[in-house]
Amino acid sequence: MNLKDFQKIYTPQIDKFLEDHLASEVDNPIFSKIMSYSVMAGGKRLRPLLFLATLETLNYKISESELRIACGIELIHTYSLIHDDLPAMDNDDYRRGKLTSHKKWGEAEAILAGDALLPLGIQWITEGSNSAALAIIISQAVGPNGMVGGQYLDIDSTNNDLVKENVKVIDQMEWLKTGCLIEASVKMAAVYAGASTDQVDRLDNFSKQFGRSYQIYDDLVDVVETEQEAGKATHKDADEGKNNTLTLLGIEASRKQLLKMIKTGKEAVKIFKQPLLGDFFNLYQKVL
Amino acid sequence: MNLKDFQKIYTPQIDKFLEDHLASEVDNPIFSKIMSYSVMAGGKRLRPLLFLATLETLNYKISESELRIACGIELIHTYSLIHDDLPAMDNDDYRRGKLTSHKKWGEAEAILAGDALLPLGIQWITEGSNSAALAIIISQAVGPNGMVGGQYLDIDSTNNDLVKENVKVIDQMEWLKTGCLIEASVKMAAVYAGASTDQVDRLDNFSKQFGRSYQIYDDLVDVVETEQEAGKATHKDADEGKNNTLTLLGIEASRKQLLKMIKTGKEAVKIFKQPLLGDFFNLYQKVL
Repeated sequence: MNLKDFQKIYTPQIDKFLEDHLASEVDNPIFSKIMSYSVMAGGKRLRPLLFLATLETLNYKISESELRIACGIELIHTYSLIHDDLPAMDNDDYRRGKLTSHKKWGEAEAILAGDALLPLGIQWITEGSNSAALAIIISQAVGPNGMVGGQYLDIDSTNNDLVKENVKVIDQMEWLKTGCLIEASVKMAAVYAGASTDQVDRLDNFSKQFGRSYQIYDDLVDVVETEQEAGKATHKDADEGKNNTLTLLGIEASRKQLLKMIKTGKEAVKIFKQPLLGDFFNLYQKVL
Repeated sequence: MNLKDFQKIYTPQIDKFLEDHLASEVDNPIFSKIMSYSVMAGGKRLRPLLFLATLETLNYKISESELRIACGIELIHTYSLIHDDLPAMDNDDYRRGKLTSHKKWGEAEAILAGDALLPLGIQWITEGSNSAALAIIISQAVGPNGMVGGQYLDIDSTNNDLVKENVKVIDQMEWLKTGCLIEASVKMAAVYAGASTDQVDRLDNFSKQFGRSYQIYDDLVDVVETEQEAGKATHKDADEGKNNTLTLLGIEASRKQLLKMIKTGKEAVKIFKQPLLGDFFNLYQKVL
């Protein structure tokens, strides 16, 4: 199967699972609504799709339990967006064309919605898999040596001239901030489906290339797209003294790096019969 | 063993584990320092002690893995304190006589320190136990139907006259906010040690009484102690329109309710040879 067909089947299932289970599993109806507002704000479901596509690539049957794990990843991704948008962090008013959580519901509510989505996400992943190994993979991926560590480096490096020229720090920051959760989405599927050592290595290489390049893509969107297309404020990074691969290398060199990663990533998964995982790089088309 | 002797042995071990492992397991040294600042701010280690005391009560040997689980609980408790103190929440400048995280390091740093301590805590609990069941218990206890749900009700009920007279809402809010994590600390030990059904029931009853009464105790401290003794701003709740059992029932009726819970809680665990768990209620002596 290719990614377009796969998305047609599973994106609606992911959306429905998220909407239904946030409504039925969160006791307080108003708090449930606040959490659901950000989760149902029209994300691409990239990480749950990656998890499910890796299962499909390994010929592992997808049903309710696997959807629960996939949606758990999306809850965690949504938590990270809510907290990133907070006034003390990126201070964004809009996300995906809608008011951000703190603008819509208040700052305390947004902090708590994020604080609730994170453990609920880990809970769904662990319930769906009944696996301590998956609970550990996801906790590590979003902890101080993963996603949150990347956010800390981001805060620490903003308007920091010492960092501006430091390729290594920026590379690590972008890897942690974005790459770790993407890598974990693929790794959890490989462990869950009982992939062979060779398969695990190839999937790992793929997810590292895709995870690292995704932030470069996202930063390119920031300069290439207009605000209306991106659904959020663009051209903000340079204005706000943000340091990233793009501000360091410029547009053309960033594109070149992206192309190199696409090649290596596609190479890693070409032994699998289905083109599904390699197709994820097609997402980058609009900035190439 | 009684609680005093138990604390003499294990409080220093908990403190040392926390300090050593936050330093060695968090890659970024400055972020590690920010996280450690709040974790090492002189807490009583009540929840890890409860976990370990329940193991001791069930004659389960305590070593490195069990300390890792216990300390994971303390990381999660610390995260909740850091986020509660934020300007958008309780807006507290001091905690345990020291500047709160956001006052010391900045608001973004405090949000991220909390965001890092939560998954690291779940990771330690799951690594120490290698148990999906424990990962699920802790995630539920701190999620939207647990601790964070209680925080949401607290925010929602502050300065809310409809809630002021609503015993049921206040009871639920205090249970979720404080009781759930205490209950989970005991329940994780019971599941981990393979307690019998009768033992689980008794421990559950004990932890429900202790968990519920702890918030009443904490609110009483707020009016009974001076600021210097409590290490934080006291007498704040009434000033800020906070609704709790105390503002609803008054000091004397709250004390009576506390005494009743102590009696029921002690009764539940008196079949165990050691007085260890019942001793936890002695903590309340100073407000009785």
